[in-house]
Amino acid sequence: MTSDTRTFRVGVLGHGTVGSAFASLLPVHADRIERMTGLRPELSGVMTRSRGSFDDILEGSDLIVELIGGIEPARNYLLRAMRAGRHVVTANKQLLSQHGEELWDAARDNNVQLRFEGAVAGVVPVIRVLQESLAGAIIDRVHGIVNGTTNYILTEMARTGMTFDQALAEAQRLGYAEADPSDDVNGRDAAAKMAIIARLAFDTPVHLDQVRYEGIEHVQPDDLEYARDLGLELKLIGTAERVGDGLSVRVHPIFLYPGHPLATVGGPFNAVTVESEAITEITMSGPGAGGPQTASAVLGDVISAMIPPASTPPTSSVLEIVQDVVSAFYLHLEVADEPGVLAQVAQVLALQGVSVKSVVQKGLGDQARLVMVVHPVLESRFAGAMGMIAGLDVMRTPPRAIRVLEEEFG
Amino acid sequence: MTSDTRTFRVGVLGHGTVGSAFASLLPVHADRIERMTGLRPELSGVMTRSRGSFDDILEGSDLIVELIGGIEPARNYLLRAMRAGRHVVTANKQLLSQHGEELWDAARDNNVQLRFEGAVAGVVPVIRVLQESLAGAIIDRVHGIVNGTTNYILTEMARTGMTFDQALAEAQRLGYAEADPSDDVNGRDAAAKMAIIARLAFDTPVHLDQVRYEGIEHVQPDDLEYARDLGLELKLIGTAERVGDGLSVRVHPIFLYPGHPLATVGGPFNAVTVESEAITEITMSGPGAGGPQTASAVLGDVISAMIPPASTPPTSSVLEIVQDVVSAFYLHLEVADEPGVLAQVAQVLALQGVSVKSVVQKGLGDQARLVMVVHPVLESRFAGAMGMIAGLDVMRTPPRAIRVLEEEFG
Repeated sequence: MTSDTRTFRVGVLGHGTVGSAFASLLPVHADRIERMTGLRPELSGVMTRSRGSFDDILEGSDLIVELIGGIEPARNYLLRAMRAGRHVVTANKQLLSQHGEELWDAARDNNVQLRFEGAVAGVVPVIRVLQESLAGAIIDRVHGIVNGTTNYILTEMARTGMTFDQALAEAQRLGYAEADPSDDVNGRDAAAKMAIIARLAFDTPVHLDQVRYEGIEHVQPDDLEYARDLGLELKLIGTAERVGDGLSVRVHPIFLYPGHPLATVGGPFNAVTVESEAITEITMSGPGAGGPQTASAVLGDVISAMIPPASTPPTSSVLEIVQDVVSAFYLHLEVADEPGVLAQVAQVLALQGVSVKSVVQKGLGDQARLVMVVHPVLESRFAGAMGMIAGLDVMRTPPRAIRVLEEEFG
Repeated sequence: MTSDTRTFRVGVLGHGTVGSAFASLLPVHADRIERMTGLRPELSGVMTRSRGSFDDILEGSDLIVELIGGIEPARNYLLRAMRAGRHVVTANKQLLSQHGEELWDAARDNNVQLRFEGAVAGVVPVIRVLQESLAGAIIDRVHGIVNGTTNYILTEMARTGMTFDQALAEAQRLGYAEADPSDDVNGRDAAAKMAIIARLAFDTPVHLDQVRYEGIEHVQPDDLEYARDLGLELKLIGTAERVGDGLSVRVHPIFLYPGHPLATVGGPFNAVTVESEAITEITMSGPGAGGPQTASAVLGDVISAMIPPASTPPTSSVLEIVQDVVSAFYLHLEVADEPGVLAQVAQVLALQGVSVKSVVQKGLGDQARLVMVVHPVLESRFAGAMGMIAGLDVMRTPPRAIRVLEEEFG
């Protein structure tokens, strides 16, 4: 593999779920990244347990991505890469929560970038937001749902009445839990992520050993049932907050009242709320760790290391701006209360290809109110139907319509 | 004012709500910023309508913050600052949505940073996340609540049954709406923000004139009442999405089903959801534009322009890690169903200073279940009470406890 000034060589250590997802993602995006950065990213090598030499990959790379996990040899490789003047990207939360200061010191001493968005909360950009957007804010507290496996299990237990063991088996079947889920369900994975978050939010050293944690293995279905009666949602919450002159960092199952920004975060999602007097609070949510999601966070870090900060790239193409799109609608009609009115309205809608999803009709003396929701339709077709409806003799006031977002979530 | 290598001189254009908030914020954070960046930020001058010369401020500044608003002279000042090699920060959405390409070209041509987080969604870091975290993702769609005034008005109309005019008056009284709220309530402010978001998300030029928009002035209280029957929440939603080979950018009042990540965003908050196949979706929410919030976003941009990218600063102090904190608890007890049991439990709790908030008791044959929530108490005190309760003769199984987050939201 030759190197020239237009190429940016990325060496990857590790070829597990995230490593292989990243290795496939990079070539797919190479054209776009070249257009954005002026540099073409190229995989300079992938080291697996049985194949490849670290020294060769280091020699041939501008940046090293560490996705081996665990403490050694990951720590040693990252330190050597930074001392050799290479930028590094890692998703290794265990390593950063136990040897973070040594690594961050090495990055500063060698004037290289050490990026680690993939280590915490998958694609939810909590690291970048803490390091950059909130660099000017004094943070009071961070709350986070930072483990997708346990959030999925708690969501399913609450939804179906399953036991912990049943919900864990279901999570494993769907790929939301690993074969050995111990560190997820006992809270240690979340504790490592909270140690990293607390370090960045409060500029104070925090080691994994200083984080108190408790898992969800002992949660009983009837706890969730009673909680429902009390209006509460159970989540595994990581907290980092100032307490007096000190700092508390901890992970526990906690009931939330409805209205809390984290109460509605369900399934394998992660979310983090940062509180600061200056900004009130920011909440960020998205899918938690998974191969493709973490690989996407790692790729974002690689691109950031390639481009000058905060550059707005030139436009890549000129997309046509479309005016007529598809939408569902709520329709509110005040009509004469006489036979055949609904039929007339329905006929006009059918003529324009507008299909009714639900109708509520209410009598109001000598007139009636028809409120309906229609299925998605091209807006111009709906506008045509509205024009025809407005012209019907039975209308008492002009028809009113508001768009409805028709989507599945979950 | 003298300049030396340890000083970073910030010149401010404009002294309205945001400008004055920023001018007071900078000195407060100067020590922290100096520790983080090695440079001490200093206000080199503030230009108001009647005072100060642009040429003098430009000459004496390393970075120019533009908070005048409107098109001219803001456009001219920003171009001149960039051509003189200065980084610039602006919160001017009208300008960027109409002359963005000219400004972004100038930043690239002069190799300076043009940052504008404060232009969209207050402290919600949508610009940085689109430009950096998601640089490696192909974005399919962005939905946003990007105007806090209209979101506050719709929330109040739905909550109280008020008319639009009444809710607008209330918003003005509380400072959530300006004296002339036209651009907020007619959707034009949101349209400008969506033009900027669409430009970044899709790398295609988008001008404010290409954004279709509709406001909330015509929303009737009974639309919201019927919507409640149908389970819908009304929001003013900006959308930017691929449609065929083109792009649609638009702002409309839209009903959302419960479960949509934007459905629970109430009051003067903003929120943006970015959808991409690789990442599913990310949602970010927080307070919308307000003087202190926008000033905080502007300060984040200034700091970013001062520091090398993604640097983790050395720790600033060593905070004590606190282990014993205050928490509310849910308590689940299986007890003998006999007189005086609740009294015994209550006495133990009282002894330890634990105060009961709510109790549910259920008989189960010859035993009973007591489920209660207690007010916040030091965890060590609660643990003491748990130990004493576990020792009571009336207990049939060990007591179970789970923390409860006790907080006010909204």
